[in-house]
Amino acid sequence: MDLQKIIDSMQKEGLDSVLILKPENIAYLSSFKPSSLSMVIIKEDAILHTSKMDMEDAESNSKLQLKEFKSLEEIEKELKGVVGIEKSLPVSVCKKICEDKKIKLTEIVEYQRMIKTTDEIDKIKKSIKIAEKSFLETDFSGTEFEAAANLEYRLKFNGSVKPAFETIIASGSRSSIPHSTISNNKLETPVVIDWGAVHDNYCSDITRTLVQSEKEIEIFNIVLEAQQEAIKAIKPGIKASYVDKTARKVIEEHGYGDNFIHSTGHGLGLEVHENPTLSMKSDFKLEKGMVVTVEPGIYIKDQFGIRIEDDILIKRRGKVLTGLKKIF
Amino acid sequence: MDLQKIIDSMQKEGLDSVLILKPENIAYLSSFKPSSLSMVIIKEDAILHTSKMDMEDAESNSKLQLKEFKSLEEIEKELKGVVGIEKSLPVSVCKKICEDKKIKLTEIVEYQRMIKTTDEIDKIKKSIKIAEKSFLETDFSGTEFEAAANLEYRLKFNGSVKPAFETIIASGSRSSIPHSTISNNKLETPVVIDWGAVHDNYCSDITRTLVQSEKEIEIFNIVLEAQQEAIKAIKPGIKASYVDKTARKVIEEHGYGDNFIHSTGHGLGLEVHENPTLSMKSDFKLEKGMVVTVEPGIYIKDQFGIRIEDDILIKRRGKVLTGLKKIF
Repeated sequence: MDLQKIIDSMQKEGLDSVLILKPENIAYLSSFKPSSLSMVIIKEDAILHTSKMDMEDAESNSKLQLKEFKSLEEIEKELKGVVGIEKSLPVSVCKKICEDKKIKLTEIVEYQRMIKTTDEIDKIKKSIKIAEKSFLETDFSGTEFEAAANLEYRLKFNGSVKPAFETIIASGSRSSIPHSTISNNKLETPVVIDWGAVHDNYCSDITRTLVQSEKEIEIFNIVLEAQQEAIKAIKPGIKASYVDKTARKVIEEHGYGDNFIHSTGHGLGLEVHENPTLSMKSDFKLEKGMVVTVEPGIYIKDQFGIRIEDDILIKRRGKVLTGLKKIF
Repeated sequence: MDLQKIIDSMQKEGLDSVLILKPENIAYLSSFKPSSLSMVIIKEDAILHTSKMDMEDAESNSKLQLKEFKSLEEIEKELKGVVGIEKSLPVSVCKKICEDKKIKLTEIVEYQRMIKTTDEIDKIKKSIKIAEKSFLETDFSGTEFEAAANLEYRLKFNGSVKPAFETIIASGSRSSIPHSTISNNKLETPVVIDWGAVHDNYCSDITRTLVQSEKEIEIFNIVLEAQQEAIKAIKPGIKASYVDKTARKVIEEHGYGDNFIHSTGHGLGLEVHENPTLSMKSDFKLEKGMVVTVEPGIYIKDQFGIRIEDDILIKRRGKVLTGLKKIF
C-alpha cells in the first residue's frame, strides 16, 4: 500500500478528505482488519479510528496511527472540504456524517487495490497453495455436506482462518445451480467444487468439476475450451469485457449461449469478488499486476452444470497461478 | 413472517413502497437467501427480483412472486410515492434508485424480525443444539487453529452450512482481546471459545471459557455472577439498557468496570448480531418473543480475558436456551 499515491489521487479527484468504512479497505490501508465499526480518515495523513474492543489488537497490527472511535459526531468534525465516500457506505452513516457537506463517491482505494504489489501476489499465491493442498487431502465421498466438511477442515488445518466463501459442492442435478447451497445428497457426477482459502486476508477462488458420462465430458470440453481461449485473450491494455466475449463466443458457437448465465470472472484479492469484473458490460481495462478469475460455465436446467475456474495474474500475458491440472 | 403486518406498518409510517436489499431481510420475507444482487419491492404485494443465476434456486424456495432482476433503472420505475429504504442501503444504489424520489429510512423488516415466531424459535433452538453437540464432540488440544478446525468440522458435519461467524478460540494472554483471531499458539488456560452454528439461516452464538488458575477462577466467578444477574433482570417491558447496567454494576462493584469493554448482548436470529442491542445506550424495550445473547466479559490487558455467553428467549422471564452447564 502506497499512501502517497492515494493522497495524490485525492488531489486529482478534488477531494480534501476521504472516509473509509469497508473492512477490506481498512485492512489494505492499515494491515489490520477490524472486527467492529471502525473507520479510516485520510487527509494529509491517514488515521484509523477503532473501537475500544479492537484497540489492543489494532495496537499490535495497525500500520496507521490510532484513535479510539467514540461517535459519528466526532468523525463528522474531522471531515473537511470535499469528502470522498465509498459507494458501499450505508445511507444511514452518510446521513449522519455528510449532512451539509460536499460529498463525492470515490473508489480511490478500490482502484489502487486492483494492481497488486509483489507482497500481495505472494499472499494470493500462498492462499492458492493452501486451497490446492487442502483439495488434494480431501476425501470426496459421502454427501455434499460431508465432503464440504472434509474440505473445509483441511483448509483450516492448513492455515486458512476461514473459507474464502461458503464452499460449493453441487452434485448431480444440483450442479445446474451456479451458487448451489450444499445438501445431504450423496455425491454423484458431475460434482462442481468451488472453494477458496484465506491467507493473511487474501483470498483464492478455484472451481473444479468432476465428470464421468459422455455427455458430461462433452460439455466439460466446451467449457474448458472457452476458458482456455479466454485466458489466452488476456493481456494488458485490452478491455475486461473482451475476455468475457471470448469465452461467451466459444460457448455460443457450440449452441449453449443461453446456458452461460453469469460473468466470466472477477478480480481477486482482499475480497473474493473485487474489481475488475470480467463481464459483458465491464468498463475496466486490464493492467499488469491485476489478479482475476476466469470461470465460464454451462448450466442445463434439471440436468447438470459444469464450471472451471482458475486464478490468473496479468503480466505480459495471463499467467495461470492455479495448478491441479492432473484432476482433469 | 406476516406480510400483512408489514404492509400495515408501511401505512403507519406513511410509506407507499419499500425497497429491501439486505440478504437477511430478503430471507425473512421470501424464505430464500439470494447469493447475488437481489431485491424485494413491497407495495400492495411483495415481489422478489433476483438474478438469472439465482433463478432456479429461487423458483424452488421463494415464497414470494419472482421476477428476473435486470437493471436498477427497472427497479427505479417500480418504486412509487414515499419510498422506505433500509439504513444499510449503499449510497451508490440510493443515488441511482432514489434520485427525485421522496425517501425515508425505515427498519420495518428489522422491527418485525425482533419478535420471533415459534417456527423461528425452533430454528434457533436447533442451531443451538448443533453448536452444543459439535462442542462436546470436539477435541480441544493442540493449537488454537487445530482446535478451531476440529470444532468447525463438527459444526459442518452436524449440518451447519457454515459457522455463524469466524470461530474465536483465544488462549492464554490472547484471551484479553474480545474478538481475537486464531493463532498457532498452543492452547493454555484461560481458553475463550466463542462459536455458533447456522440452521436454516438461523444463528446460535455461545461463549465458554475454560479456566484453571486461582486468579482465572476468581475472575470467572465475577463474570458468571454478572451474567446470572443480568439474565435474572430480563423481563418484557424493561429497557434493554437495564440488562447492560445490571451486568456492568456487578463487574464495577468488583473493581473491574474498565475491563468490560463491550456491550452485554444483542439480538439473535437470521443475523448473529441484530436488534435489540443490550448496550448502555440502547433505546429498545424488551418484548416477549425476542431472543438475545447475554455475554459480559472482563479483559485484563497483557494478562487474560474471560467471557460467558448464553442465548435467552424472552417469555414472562428470560428463558435460557443454551445448556452445556457441566463444563463449568
